Amino acid sequence: MDLIQSIGYLAGFIIAVALTPQVIQAWKTKSTKDISLPWTIILLLGLLLYFIYGLGIKEMPIIVMNTIETLLVISLIIAKLIYK
Amino acid sequence: MDLIQSIGYLAGFIIAVALTPQVIQAWKTKSTKDISLPWTIILLLGLLLYFIYGLGIKEMPIIVMNTIETLLVISLIIAKLIYK
Repeated sequence: MDLIQSIGYLAGFIIAVALTPQVIQAWKTKSTKDISLPWTIILLLGLLLYFIYGLGIKEMPIIVMNTIETLLVISLIIAKLIYK
Repeated sequence: MDLIQSIGYLAGFIIAVALTPQVIQAWKTKSTKDISLPWTIILLLGLLLYFIYGLGIKEMPIIVMNTIETLLVISLIIAKLIYK
């Protein structure tokens, strides 16, 4: 794995880390009133398209890290739908 | 520009669109108390690394759309520092 690939993984990891507290908070407090569902769905759509793009240009850092970020956002949407 | 590049631009555009209401709201209400500064700085770091990665793999959709997203987050940090 070369330096550029490592930077790609690190970038995706940091963005996943930035999302995590929000997801943990939603499940812990069982409260998601301040989270906008349309916003979360727009974000999910963007991440899914990024995933397709990553597959298209065959860049593993985008594919792997986007899968993790997509799962985090899906988990946020599920929390939002359960605890509205 | 091929289909995959277009999907990459669209993905970045959608994520920028997801960020925009937050930035507009911060400048309009002059209130940023609910925005976490450490969160914003982590996001900025992730975006900057993604930018370097985009340069490294020479993918214009990542470079262009990440520049826009980075500017949005910097504008959010400036609002946060002015209207604390």
